[in-house]
Order: sequence, then structure tokens, then C-alpha cells
Amino acid sequence: MTDVLELAKRLISAPSVTPASGAVFDAMEAMLAPLGFAVHRFMAGEAPDGPVENLFAIRSGPAGSRHFAFAGHLDVVPPGEGWSTAGAFEPEERGALLYGRGAVDMKGSIACMVAAVANVPQDAGTISFIITGDEEGPAIYGTRALIDYMRDQGHQPDLCLVGEPTSVQRMGDMMKVGRRGSLNIWLTVEGKEGHVAYPHLADNPIPRMVAMLADLAALELDRGNDWFQPSNLEITELEVGNPATNVIPPRATARLSIRFNDHHTGASLSELVGGIAEKHGGTALPIISGEPFLTLPGEFSAIVARAVQAETGLDPEPSTTGGTSDARFLRAVCPVIEFGLINATMHKRDEAVAIADLYALSRIYTAIATAALQS
Amino acid sequence: MTDVLELAKRLISAPSVTPASGAVFDAMEAMLAPLGFAVHRFMAGEAPDGPVENLFAIRSGPAGSRHFAFAGHLDVVPPGEGWSTAGAFEPEERGALLYGRGAVDMKGSIACMVAAVANVPQDAGTISFIITGDEEGPAIYGTRALIDYMRDQGHQPDLCLVGEPTSVQRMGDMMKVGRRGSLNIWLTVEGKEGHVAYPHLADNPIPRMVAMLADLAALELDRGNDWFQPSNLEITELEVGNPATNVIPPRATARLSIRFNDHHTGASLSELVGGIAEKHGGTALPIISGEPFLTLPGEFSAIVARAVQAETGLDPEPSTTGGTSDARFLRAVCPVIEFGLINATMHKRDEAVAIADLYALSRIYTAIATAALQS
Ligand SMILES: [Zn+2]
Ligand SMILES: [Zn+2]
Repeated sequence: MTDVLELAKRLISAPSVTPASGAVFDAMEAMLAPLGFAVHRFMAGEAPDGPVENLFAIRSGPAGSRHFAFAGHLDVVPPGEGWSTAGAFEPEERGALLYGRGAVDMKGSIACMVAAVANVPQDAGTISFIITGDEEGPAIYGTRALIDYMRDQGHQPDLCLVGEPTSVQRMGDMMKVGRRGSLNIWLTVEGKEGHVAYPHLADNPIPRMVAMLADLAALELDRGNDWFQPSNLEITELEVGNPATNVIPPRATARLSIRFNDHHTGASLSELVGGIAEKHGGTALPIISGEPFLTLPGEFSAIVARAVQAETGLDPEPSTTGGTSDARFLRAVCPVIEFGLINATMHKRDEAVAIADLYALSRIYTAIATAALQS
Repeated sequence: MTDVLELAKRLISAPSVTPASGAVFDAMEAMLAPLGFAVHRFMAGEAPDGPVENLFAIRSGPAGSRHFAFAGHLDVVPPGEGWSTAGAFEPEERGALLYGRGAVDMKGSIACMVAAVANVPQDAGTISFIITGDEEGPAIYGTRALIDYMRDQGHQPDLCLVGEPTSVQRMGDMMKVGRRGSLNIWLTVEGKEGHVAYPHLADNPIPRMVAMLADLAALELDRGNDWFQPSNLEITELEVGNPATNVIPPRATARLSIRFNDHHTGASLSELVGGIAEKHGGTALPIISGEPFLTLPGEFSAIVARAVQAETGLDPEPSTTGGTSDARFLRAVCPVIEFGLINATMHKRDEAVAIADLYALSRIYTAIATAALQS
């Protein structure tokens, strides 16, 4: 049974709010085993960011053949309220659409991967699935643990396609060939508490924090380049926590979120911000979530583009916009590109996929895998 | 029994953490009645800022005589921990000092007022006591209610002395002839929530708040004048309340505290800040705690200065520094000056007064009342 619509419904039916484990992985294993895949499931990590369930499945081709990997996640964000269907985990066909949490992000595209490999003969080459139960959460023990496992077992894909929903208006209009880096920085300015009537006996940290943030808000980090939009800094939090109207507080804190392109590294930005903080008598504590990466357009992107064009007539724009994904980890293994369904309803109530898109994406994935194994 | 030390001990012995009522007012009434005062006590206000006990006492002089008022408060701030005495409400003489909560702020000086009037003959003129149980608290139903009562009863003092501890290094070195105004302003900037990876779909309110606060922090409100120090603006709070590192928040808030001199009014500053807020797309909500006031040096300040100089040899500096007091309300009734004990230990543990200062202040108050009634 490799009808992609049925596969998608089966995956959606297994509730899997991040971190996912159990039933949804049982369903996945039950789909892959009949197709000749050796399935390895394991738990990784401990509280608070684990344990997390992961699945690596492989169907080996002839000795020396190429190795192509599909990657994705079975966990979903919480459904929230207000669905028009019987329930977020009760897949429902209505008109041309299939509704359900994960329909596009990304149980739908995982169903497409499974249906796709059913149409690729085993002797075409080695195909694997790199599937985690924690991409929407902390992602500490998800794809990273899978990469560790693959390295330990000597599994080295040549190319990897991540099935995130990259399409915007029409399926096929965009693929992701890279992602910006991501960095959070906590800022603190210490002062000296006192009474507002005697400011000379106190040292208000807020004006220095304000001056620091004004400098940071005025930064032009870069103007972008051919592949990346300009890096962007957002101030996401201010906090003093002073309930007393007549008290000068002892401390002010703030937080930044920077999404940055390959003009920078997490370290270079940490140093830049740290210097500005220091200039205003403050301190900066950076935590780097991911470095930027780019799979330079070439053979792999041409394979994806040809497969998309053959099915949809669209030439997918090679983009690096948007948030982060597990591609930031997989890029260390091999060239990685993301391509999948339309992302308009992802993370929203009434998440839905056009049923025709499921069949089309399944054919695209077959074409990509086939071409990748021949490359 | 009008020995000032005994009077002070009796008042300190009655616990009266703000808002005060009951025993400490019983003690006060028991002191004033034998001196010929008609004592009126009443409760004012309701929760949360009331009820509050107040006392108005009056001893009328001959028809057409002058009316001089002493004003003060019997409530005290909480004693806190760590007193070296048996307890904050167990007055203790140790060496030259009398310890106890309220020793200087301001049960000590109220005892001096009582002892002082015992030495002023009734035919010298009308003397009154304007005494509240809520000056250290919200002060909504304290001295303001007393002023309403006096107006309703047709009691109109010509001059009023408030017994706050105005002396700094030595008793007599400073009197307060005015106070700065006080104003709090709540600032809000609204934006549009969104994801940091898609800033063009959001509107981060924080950079506009930062720019607004930078403008406000750079303001020079004035340079002060002969009677007032420069007005001062402090940013006392910043608040966004955004726990999510990848979210652009919808709103930023801040709070200002402005202590201002007579170059301004609460309304003029509210308008100034409101205009700056508006320029940055924000809003300002002002709450005026008090307007500035000044009892211009003249006959009354000369009376106080002469009485102080005769007793201490010091020429009291006419000052407007420091926090607010109930003088901000009484100034609407008649000219008001504040003069009292050394404020070094006020609101602290081991609050204490030099016993000799009690006797000296009692004599100073007698001289002030006598001269004021002759003026
Ligand atoms: Zn996803
Ligand atoms: Zn006081």
C-alpha cells in the first residue's frame, strides 16, 4: 500500500506533538519495512531536552552505488484551537484538500518520500531516511543524534533532500539551498539602586541600556548578497522588573535575535555586539543556534529544478529565506537542499495540503532520487 | 506632664506602622486636651487607600487673633529587622540618644510641638494641630481630608509649620521652603507580533521605544534656579515580557519618574513627554503626584531662621531638595515651611534622636509659634 494519500492520512492519524515518539514511528516503520528498508529506531537524550525518538532506515543498492538520503521530522507543533475539522489528528478530505496537523509540515511530504522510493528500483542505488521526532522542539537530540549514529555506522549519503514545505504560492516555486544563521544575545547593564529624589546617589542602568540598544538598532550588518537577504537584528525583549515608581532600578536586561548570512559567523557577531555592550558599560551573553550555510547552485540544485519543472512547469527559485531547519545540521554531512509542499498553512489551524500536490510531489521526489543516484 | 522626652517616648511606644490609628492618636489626644485644645478625630476613606485616622486640634485665642498651625504625621514606616534595641516601638535612652521608630520622623518633633505650645499662653493667639495617620502611605485620605475638614469648619491658619526632619548634619542647618513636583508617566509603543525570521511581516515596537527613551534621556528640562535644583527625569521601568527568543513582540512599555521645579507644571511636562511619545508612534499616560511649590523667602522664613539661630547659632539653609511631603497639600491653605530634626536615621533601623535636640527643637517651636502669632 503505497498510495501517497493513504500514507499521509496514516501518519496524520498518529498524534505527534513535539517531541514525537511511539505510534507515528510505528506507522513509519510499517511503511518502510515492506519496501526493503532496514529500520533502526532509537531514543536519544534525557530531560529537559530529551528523550527523543529517531529513525534511520536504509535500503542498500549495489556495492559502490551512490547514496541518496531523504530527511524530515514526524513531530508537529501543537494544533491549537478552532479547527473546522473533527480534530487536528483526524485527517479529513474536503474538496481538493486534505486537512490535518502535519499535512504540509511535514507528514505529507514524508508520505511523498515513501511513495517515491516505492518507484525507485533497489539496484538504482542506496536510499536512506533520516527521520527525527524533535525538529519543532529544542532539536538537541534529534537530527544531530541521527548524524552521530550514521557516522558511527559508516553511512555517508552523497546528497540529502529535506522535505520542509518550501513552496510559497504554488508547489514548485521555491527550494531552499541554504539558511541563515541564528544567534540570540542576552544583554545586561548593571547600575546602582536608589531613590528617584536623590539620583546622584544612584546609577540608573536604563539610559545606558537605551543608548546601547539605539546603537544596535542602527547597525547595518550587511546588504545581503546574491544568495542571502541582508542580515537582520531584532531586539526581542526588555526587562527591568521594577514595581516601585520612586525607585531607580539596579539592573536592566534585553535580548537580541540575529538572523545572519554568510558575511558573518556567530562568533564575529558575538564579538561585534559584545564590543558595543562594553562601550556602554554592559555585558553580552551570546548563544549561537546555527551558522549560515549555502549549497552553492550546481549539480544538485539542477537535479531538483529539472524534476520540479518536469512536473509543474515552474523553475524553483533557489532561496535562503525563512527560519532554520535541520538542514543546518545535515549540511555537515553532504550537500543538502530543501524542497516540499506549500507552506501557507504550516503551524496554523486547519493546516491542509492539496491532494493533487501530494501525488505531484511524490513523482518529483521519485525523479530527484533517481537522478541523484545516477549523478 | 509636658516634658518633651516623656512625650516622645509615649508616642514611640504606640506602634503605628502606616496607616496609623487608635492608640497613638489616644496618646496624642491625651496630651493636647489638658493644654486646652479641642480635639476632633475622624476616619476618612475606604479600601484600598483607607480608612485613615486623622486628628485636628485647636485652641482658640482672642477674637481676631492670628492662627498658627503645626502639621505632621503619627504613622511611621515599617521598622524592618536588625534593631540593636529591645524593639522599634520600645523607646530606649542610650547615652545621649533616644532610639525608636519615629524618633525623628516624626513623633519626636510632634512631641516638641506639644511641649512648645505648653509654653505659649492661650491669649497669644489661635494654635492648631493638623495630624494625620497616613503620610508614609498613599496619603489620599490623610492631610487632604484634614484640609477639607478645616475648610468646612472655617478654620484657616495664617502660617503652617510641618515638622518633617529637615536638618542634615546638625539640627538647624536646613529648612524646606518648597518641594519639587512629582510625576510618573507610563509609556507604551504598540507594534505587530511576528517571527524574527520574517521581520517584514511584523512591526517591532522596541526600536521605536528605544529611540523615544533616548530622546527623553537626552532632555535637559532646565538648569534649576535660585530656589530649585534642576528638574530630573528617570526611566524607572522597561517591560516587554516576551519569553520566546524567535518572536518579535507586539508591545513595549516603560515608565518615567520626573521630579520637577517651578519652571514646569505636571501638565506642561505631560504635554512635552506626550509629544515625544507621539513622534515615535507611542502613547504616554501621566499621573501627577504633586506640583512644585515654593514659600518665597520673606516674613515666615525669617521667623523660622531667627528662632533657629537663637537656639543653635545656625542660619538654616532654605532648601527645596528631597522627596515630597504633605506640605504639597498644605501649601494650598497658607504659607508653609518645614523644619525639624536631623534626618540621618529616618526610615532606617536604629532610628534615633539626640535628646538635647528634642529640648532645643521644643524651644525653637515655642519661639516660632510666638513670633508667628505676633506677625
Ligand atoms: Zn518542519
Ligand atoms: Zn515624615
